[in-house]
Formats: sequence, structure tokens, C-alpha cells
Amino acid sequence: MKITAGELAKLVNGTLEGDPEILITHPSKIEEGGEGSICFLGNLKYESHLYNSKASAILIDRSFVPKEKVKPALIRVDNVYLTVSQLLEQFNQKEKGNGLDTKAEIHPSAILGENCSVGPFSVISEGVVIGKNCILHSQVFIDKNVHLGDDTIIYPGVKIYKDCKIGNRCILHSNSVIGADGFGFSPDGNGNYQKIAQLGNVEIGDDVEIGSNTTIDRGTLGSTRIGNGCKLDNLIQIAHNVQIGNDTVIAAQAGIAGSTKIGSNCMIGGQVGIIGHLSIADGTMIQAQSGVASSLEQPKGKWYGSPAIEYFSFLRSYAEFKRLPEIAKKLKEIEDNQNK
Amino acid sequence: MKITAGELAKLVNGTLEGDPEILITHPSKIEEGGEGSICFLGNLKYESHLYNSKASAILIDRSFVPKEKVKPALIRVDNVYLTVSQLLEQFNQKEKGNGLDTKAEIHPSAILGENCSVGPFSVISEGVVIGKNCILHSQVFIDKNVHLGDDTIIYPGVKIYKDCKIGNRCILHSNSVIGADGFGFSPDGNGNYQKIAQLGNVEIGDDVEIGSNTTIDRGTLGSTRIGNGCKLDNLIQIAHNVQIGNDTVIAAQAGIAGSTKIGSNCMIGGQVGIIGHLSIADGTMIQAQSGVASSLEQPKGKWYGSPAIEYFSFLRSYAEFKRLPEIAKKLKEIEDNQNK
Amino acid sequence: MKITAGELAKLVNGTLEGDPEILITHPSKIEEGGEGSICFLGNLKYESHLYNSKASAILIDRSFVPKEKVKPALIRVDNVYLTVSQLLEQFNQKEKGNGLDTKAEIHPSAILGENCSVGPFSVISEGVVIGKNCILHSQVFIDKNVHLGDDTIIYPGVKIYKDCKIGNRCILHSNSVIGADGFGFSPDGNGNYQKIAQLGNVEIGDDVEIGSNTTIDRGTLGSTRIGNGCKLDNLIQIAHNVQIGNDTVIAAQAGIAGSTKIGSNCMIGGQVGIIGHLSIADGTMIQAQSGVASSLEQPKGKWYGSPAIEYFSFLRSYAEFKRLPEIAKKLKEIEDNQNK
Repeated sequence: MKITAGELAKLVNGTLEGDPEILITHPSKIEEGGEGSICFLGNLKYESHLYNSKASAILIDRSFVPKEKVKPALIRVDNVYLTVSQLLEQFNQKEKGNGLDTKAEIHPSAILGENCSVGPFSVISEGVVIGKNCILHSQVFIDKNVHLGDDTIIYPGVKIYKDCKIGNRCILHSNSVIGADGFGFSPDGNGNYQKIAQLGNVEIGDDVEIGSNTTIDRGTLGSTRIGNGCKLDNLIQIAHNVQIGNDTVIAAQAGIAGSTKIGSNCMIGGQVGIIGHLSIADGTMIQAQSGVASSLEQPKGKWYGSPAIEYFSFLRSYAEFKRLPEIAKKLKEIEDNQNK
Repeated sequence: MKITAGELAKLVNGTLEGDPEILITHPSKIEEGGEGSICFLGNLKYESHLYNSKASAILIDRSFVPKEKVKPALIRVDNVYLTVSQLLEQFNQKEKGNGLDTKAEIHPSAILGENCSVGPFSVISEGVVIGKNCILHSQVFIDKNVHLGDDTIIYPGVKIYKDCKIGNRCILHSNSVIGADGFGFSPDGNGNYQKIAQLGNVEIGDDVEIGSNTTIDRGTLGSTRIGNGCKLDNLIQIAHNVQIGNDTVIAAQAGIAGSTKIGSNCMIGGQVGIIGHLSIADGTMIQAQSGVASSLEQPKGKWYGSPAIEYFSFLRSYAEFKRLPEIAKKLKEIEDNQNK
Repeated sequence: MKITAGELAKLVNGTLEGDPEILITHPSKIEEGGEGSICFLGNLKYESHLYNSKASAILIDRSFVPKEKVKPALIRVDNVYLTVSQLLEQFNQKEKGNGLDTKAEIHPSAILGENCSVGPFSVISEGVVIGKNCILHSQVFIDKNVHLGDDTIIYPGVKIYKDCKIGNRCILHSNSVIGADGFGFSPDGNGNYQKIAQLGNVEIGDDVEIGSNTTIDRGTLGSTRIGNGCKLDNLIQIAHNVQIGNDTVIAAQAGIAGSTKIGSNCMIGGQVGIIGHLSIADGTMIQAQSGVASSLEQPKGKWYGSPAIEYFSFLRSYAEFKRLPEIAKKLKEIEDNQNK
């Protein structure tokens, strides 16, 4: 893709400061920009790179005031990250399928919509229904009666157990596992555990992205549900019968235990753990590594710590935790004074 | 499966309160129960659903006293969870194999017992010995000289490295990895690490279930051992030469470092970390997200925190942690008073 | 392999105390040693085994003074662990390839160096370039334009996305995923997230080992980089655009968020989390389960806690945390005294 700075500014509803005829050929990181590259400054931690940049143009916030002279052309926009997102999409080479590979194993009863691709060594089982324009890469396993919507991409090595349903425009990254048995056992009174059959499934809405090696277990009865627009990073554990609302994002290595209900528009940090049978309100934010041990009913609350408490309370308590040796020493001095 | 409430009560040694002729056709969650469904009330958090339930029958604890009128028939049992486990098993459609797929790669020297199945694109290597009635799904990899017992199920994408041994009636979920090299390196004095060859294996007992994407490394020398009846959830890390006793359950994303010995009948919570070369007594319970940094010698102890201390001690200390800003303020006031 | 104790001592530059003619046939753990076995005592926690050992010979530190009589021959060396590493290598049966399997799918444009192996049901895509002596096991997926160096081993089920580069003598364990999309989304102002195209790649240096089910995401722009000699354990998350220096080791289940730069020769414990856009100095040590929330600029610092503080400061504060109920009680007593 080649485009002038002037055309690009118009494309992203930006205001250009600089020569509109400069040619842009590719996007770069701000510290790596060179001739022909369009970079961006979103996080001001990287501002110093702005003044040394050899890029041809830089996307920047409309209100930003540079402290020094900037050589590249500036394209000012309302929301740098959103604009970058649109711009990278322009330079992105979309995944293209190659049709149904002769080395894929597709059951004759499976129904695939028009324009689908299935890579070599993938297995599509009996009763599977797949919408149109789906790309299933190599070494994928789709068990019986699974349903996929339209325009969904399944990367190599993904395994989907029977009866699960995945929506439209979803992306499942490599080696994620959808619909394996929930972790359900009954102690039998003799110190042994008896397996509880897991008869439910997983239902994933539209526009959901699931990271590599993430696991989402099927419901014991009924469904484990992931709402529309949710984004799950890598190595996440979602246990049986968890319910997640729409547009909730979960960072890597977080884990949600069985039957917990999480609202919409939540942000859950990396390595967070949430125990089972809780209810988490819409818009909840949970700081990385926190452990949630009771329901969080207040919408848009912010939480931190293990077990998690209100975010600023945790910060204040932790500030004193760091002073604890000093606190203990002062207390000792006061005691000694009193005992004189 | 169709069964009357009277027959079902007899099947589970329960006492029926209601019409013995009601027809039961499927199990449901209590909040989703409808005509023909059998539900259960185990966790009293869900008691309110009991009074609105449209299910045909509900399993309930023998001693439970309802606060309001209940419409469905009640089947009273000694242990609700255990009964549910037995009941779901009745409704469960067992995994059935399809024999040896022609697209599986099975080495001529491999020995498979009667009635085994191997799915397409799976690899069974030289010297492998597999018992009877095993189901190996698609895209499974079994390296040289691996031994599997009878009635074991291996889900798609599982990889088992050479020389490992798995017992009878085990279940290994998708993309779990058994027997990869332990994480062993020697600093060579020049700031580089030299790999230590990992010559051991993994030995897994009978009736063990291993979750999706869980990793169990081989011993450096000797075996990493998982005892009979252990249940491991998803995304768990078991390092080289760990020894785990019988009937220990480990929740998702926990990690056990090298050479640690864990007793029997332990319960290890999600995201727990245990450092290497420790000894954990039988019946130990470790709360989710705890970090164990020293051996826990007392049987049936309960632990919490990172680093973990006795469970109730942690709760008491954490209660004061939340009050720390107040404590610090009071201390300051006392000091100021003394200095007047 | 058969070797006498005398030859073995010479091989490892050790000093023999015992019969040089004893025959050594295999290595064992010290507690499992029998006739013909060579064991080692590295960690003095296991010293008691020394006095009961039935092994034929034991590797031991040059300065070690036994407290009791020892039956096996002793071979004294400067660095037990390094010697064990060399010795196990002698007994190790190296991975051998079987050439290009006819059931592998290798694109005609792919270039493979001499003496490479590719296992059945693996896929090598268009434009891939692989050095010599590489072993790619079964069910591996190598996407377009990936480059691998010489002597690299890829275990079954590994998936490498397009454009990634892996160095020489690397080892990638089963079901690890290299180069999946970074977790990048822009809120669009309506509560939805728009995917940011991930145009970069992953570049891994020489002599790097990557554990099972570990995930390393591609850069959004530019590369996610893992330096020479790094060792990553299982189930680790490395986010987009992370940069890691040389010879850094990371234990299982640690996670590094986007764009963080980690120095060389760092040691990062299991389940550690490091948030994004930070800078971690060379030689930094981070205790297991710690959470790093700000840059660590001091070289060779040691850190602990969540959020992490200086290692000994954390230990001192945590010692007082355990005494908090007592501290609170004393404070109450003092207050009561003052108010009398």
C-alpha cells in the first residue's frame, strides 16, 4: 500500500501539519521509523522518540503540544489508538483460505457454508454446521454437532469438543481448547473422587477473540457462556458454567472458577483469580494478580489485592505494609516509654 | 433415557415426596428446569430457585427443610453431589471409539489391546503398548515406548513424550503435554546455561484425570509421579521429579516446582504455587493463589497467603492489613500526645 | 554406556576416592541408586541419602566433608550441577530424525537444509526457510515465511505463525505457540473493542529453550524478541513487543505484559507477573509469584511481593504482617491506658 500523507490524513479524519505529498509505504514503531513510515505516539512515555524520529509522518493526539521541534509531518486525530487500529487494518494482509484441503477429514454429514477453508490434517465431525467465509487452519479438531457462525477464523491446533456453539466473526488462536469437561468430582466418602459427567456445552457469542492455549470448559448442565465482543488473552482458564457478559476483556493467565457470573464491560487483569459461584457487576475493573473471594456487586468498582479490596484502600494499606517494620519499632518505643 | 420419579428415587436410594409416576427425561440446572427435568439443590446459595422451579423433580439433602411450598417432587438423598454424579452418569453418552482410523500412523511394533480406537492424524510410535478399550482421539502423539493401561481416554492434541507410563481408566484432556523435558540448566560460569539432559519419565497411576493444556514434565533422573485417583484441572504445571500421592486434587493454573513431594488427599487451590524440594503432608488444604515457600509437615493443615501461613492466622492478619492506615494514624496520634 | 569409576572421574576432571575399576552403567537419583549407578549430591537437603546409598559412585563437591562413613566411591568435582549436566549428556540418547515423512505437507517453495526431518501430519508453508539438521516432529505447523536456524528441535504440536524467526540450536516443546496475535484492541467509544491488526513478528535468538504450552505473541509493529541463551519454562505468557536480553531464565506460568523490556541474565520466578511498558535491569532476580508494577532500574536487584518491593524489605514487612493482630492489640492497650 502506498498513500500520501495528505490522503492518509483525510482517510483518518486527521489534520495534517506538514507536506501533503510525502509518500507513506508502511507503519513502524516510533523508535524504528524511517523514510516512508507512519508512526504513532499514544503513550507519552515514548515522547522522547518523537524528537529524534526519522519517520515520514506521526499520528498524534489533537491536543498534544510538542516541547521541541519535530521533523516528521504530524497528523492530529481525536483518538490515537483507535486511528492506529483503523490504519493498521489498511496495511494488514487478511487471512485467505485455500478451500477444503484434500487432507482434511470432513464427515459427509457436516454442512459448510460457501467460501470456507479447512486446512490439512483437520477433522470436522458428524453433524457439524459451519457458516460462510470461515477459515479453519491445519490440525484443528471440531467434534460432533459443533456450530460455527460466519467469518470465523480458527487457528492451527484448536480443539472444540462436541455440541459447542461459536458465533460470527470470532477468532480462536492456536491450541486453545473449547468445551473440555468441567472439573467436577464428588468425594465418595472413602477418600476417592467420582467423576461427575459433564453434559453441558460452551456458547460463545459474536466478535469474540480467544487467545492461544486458553481453555473454556463445558457446563456440567447448561452452558458456559461468553458474551458478544469479549476478548480473552492467552492461557486463561474459564471453568464450567461461568457466564460472561458482553464486551468484557480478560488479560492473560486469569482464571475464573465454576458458575461465576461476570457482567458486561469488565476489565480483568492478568493472573487474576476469581473463585466460584460469585457475581461480578458490570464495568468492574480488577487489577492484575488480584484474587476475588466474594461477589462484587457495585457497578464500575475497582479492586486490588488477594483477597481483593477496593483499589485505593489496597494502595493505602500496602503503603503502610511497606512501613510495617518502622511501625512495629515505634510501637515498641511507646510501650517502653509507658513502662518506664 | 426415560424414567419415572419413583424408579429414579429407588435407583439413587432416595425418598420420594411427590407423584411416583411423573416422567423424567433429562437433567437440568435448577434455574433452567422444565417439564421432564430432574434438577438438584446442593449449594444453598441457589435455594431461592427451588421455590420457582418448573422442574418435574429435585434432588435434595435428606435433612433439608424448605421455607416455602415447593412444586416439583422432591427426592431426598444422603449426599446430593454424589447422587448427582451417579445420575448424570446415567444420562451421559459414553465416548465411543471408531476403531483404528486408516489415517492414523501406527508403528508396526506398537501393541494395542482389544477394542481400542485411534483417530485420524494421530501417531503411535515404536514400542508403544496400549491396554484394551482405550480411545485415542485425533491428532494425538504417543512417543516411543509409552505404556497406557486399559480404558484410558486421550483427547485430541495430547502429546506424550517417550517412556512415560499412564494407568487404567485415565482421562487426558486436549493439548495436555506429558513428559516434556524438565526445566534443568547449569550455569557454566560464563553467564550461559547448559542444558541438563532429562533422562527420566512420567508415571501416572489409575483413575487420574488431567485437564486441558496441563503440562507434566519428565524426571531428570527417575520419575515424576502422579498417584492413583488424582484429579488435575487445566493449565497446571507439574515440574520434573514432583511426586504426588493418591486422590489429591489440584485446581486450575496451580504450579508445583521440581522435586516437591505432595501427600495423598490434598486439596490445592487454583493458581497456587509451591516451590521446589518441599514436602507437603497428607490431607493438606491450600487456599487459591497461595504461595508455599517451606515444607508443610502437619497433616490436614490449612494454609493461605503468599508466602502461605496457617489459614486463620492469615485471615486475622489480613483483617488488620485492611485497617493499616487507621492503625498508622492512631500510632501517630499517640506519638504526638507523648511528645506534647 | 559402560565406563569405570576411574575413567569417569577423569572424564569430569574429578578426584576419585574409591576403587577405580567399579563399573558404571547408568545414572540414578541418590535415593534410588543401585549397583552400577552413578548418583550425585548437590542439594545438602538430601545428605542423609548419602549414608544409605547403594550406588556404585557418587559425584560430590570437592570441599564436602561427610559426617559418617560412605559406601559408594566418591568423585569430587568443582561444580556438582555442571558436572551432572555433562555426565547426563553422555548417557542421553539424542533425538534422531527420520527424514521427511511422506505424510508431512511441505510446500514446494519451502527450503530445508541438509539432514532435516519432518514428522507425519506436520505442515511447512510457502516461503519457509529451515537450516540444516533440524528435527520437526509430528503435527507441527510452520506458517508462511518462517525462518529456522540450524540444529533446532520442534516437538509435536508446536504452532509458529507467519514471518517469525527462530535461531540455531533452539528447542521448542510441545504445543507452544509462537507469533499469535498480540492482545491489542481499541475501545471505539460505544463500549465495543476494535481489533488492532498485529503486523509484527517474533524473533528468537540462538540456544533458546521454550517450554510446553508457552505462548509468545507477535509484535503489533516490529518484533517481540527473545535473546540468545534464554530459557523459558512451561505455560509462560510473553506479550506483544516484549524484549528480553540474553541468558535470562523464566520459570513456569510467569507472564510479561506488552512492550516491557527485560535485561540480560535475569532470573524470573514462577507465576511472576510484570505489567506492560516497563524496563527491567540486567541481572534482576524476581521471587516467585511477585507482581512487578514499575520499572526496576537497579542492576542485579532482588524483588519480592505483589506489588514487588526490595526482597529483604518484603521479608521484614511480611514478618510484621504475621504479627499484625498482636500489634493491633498492643496499640489498643496503649490507647486505653492513655484514655484512663
